[in-house]
Amino acid sequence: MKKLIIGSKAELKKIFNIEEVKRFAESSLDTNPIHLDSGYAEKASFKKPIIQGMLVASLFGGILGSKLPGNGTIYLGQDLKFIKPNFVGEEVTACIELVKIREDKPIYTFETRCYNNIGELTIDGVAVVKYINPEIK
Amino acid sequence: MKKLIIGSKAELKKIFNIEEVKRFAESSLDTNPIHLDSGYAEKASFKKPIIQGMLVASLFGGILGSKLPGNGTIYLGQDLKFIKPNFVGEEVTACIELVKIREDKPIYTFETRCYNNIGELTIDGVAVVKYINPEIK
Repeated sequence: MKKLIIGSKAELKKIFNIEEVKRFAESSLDTNPIHLDSGYAEKASFKKPIIQGMLVASLFGGILGSKLPGNGTIYLGQDLKFIKPNFVGEEVTACIELVKIREDKPIYTFETRCYNNIGELTIDGVAVVKYINPEIK
Repeated sequence: MKKLIIGSKAELKKIFNIEEVKRFAESSLDTNPIHLDSGYAEKASFKKPIIQGMLVASLFGGILGSKLPGNGTIYLGQDLKFIKPNFVGEEVTACIELVKIREDKPIYTFETRCYNNIGELTIDGVAVVKYINPEIK
């Protein structure tokens, strides 16, 4: 397991496909055509269907739950600013960095950011999690 | 379309099944067993696998994109506090209420909340969206 010290970092890269975007739209009961209809997305001044911001941001949960801190992490909060869209079929990089450790409780604050395939910041935010290392329980 | 005035409300109800939770785990590259393994969830002091908080919160995008304001809504931000878990197979109610309209830009702030099947608050947050009514473009 990675060490939980200020400055600890982890990242994930992923290309979302149109099937994942459609399933997420169905699951979240979101019929907004901006994610599903190329013609509509173009008219709305995006070059192609955009991935739901919350689906992209789900990668933060992926990193927190599987890499840093890892299995057993309890998500307490997530703030998100959707700065630029991420497009279907283009690689997303999600990064987190530990910026605060509570002294009284095992509660950790991470800066969380996503970038598009040309390195532009697309999502900026902060995650707060609780984590007790299962190996030292 | 619903009127966009301070106090405008909309809601969605949904029961997430284990398949949706598994697909979201795969899509977000999250291997945290707390969502997938009943034994682990029990040991971690939850009575059964919990739905990913971000999957539950995706219902806010569902309401914003399909009900209030509706199609064409652009998500600018979402703050989330995960207060209590929602469990697989139990009904979630997601509610939004318009609390602020910018005077200079078509930017709207909503309070966003989820409740479990016995009416307890599980997620509290705030969404900010941009919306231009396509009928008056």
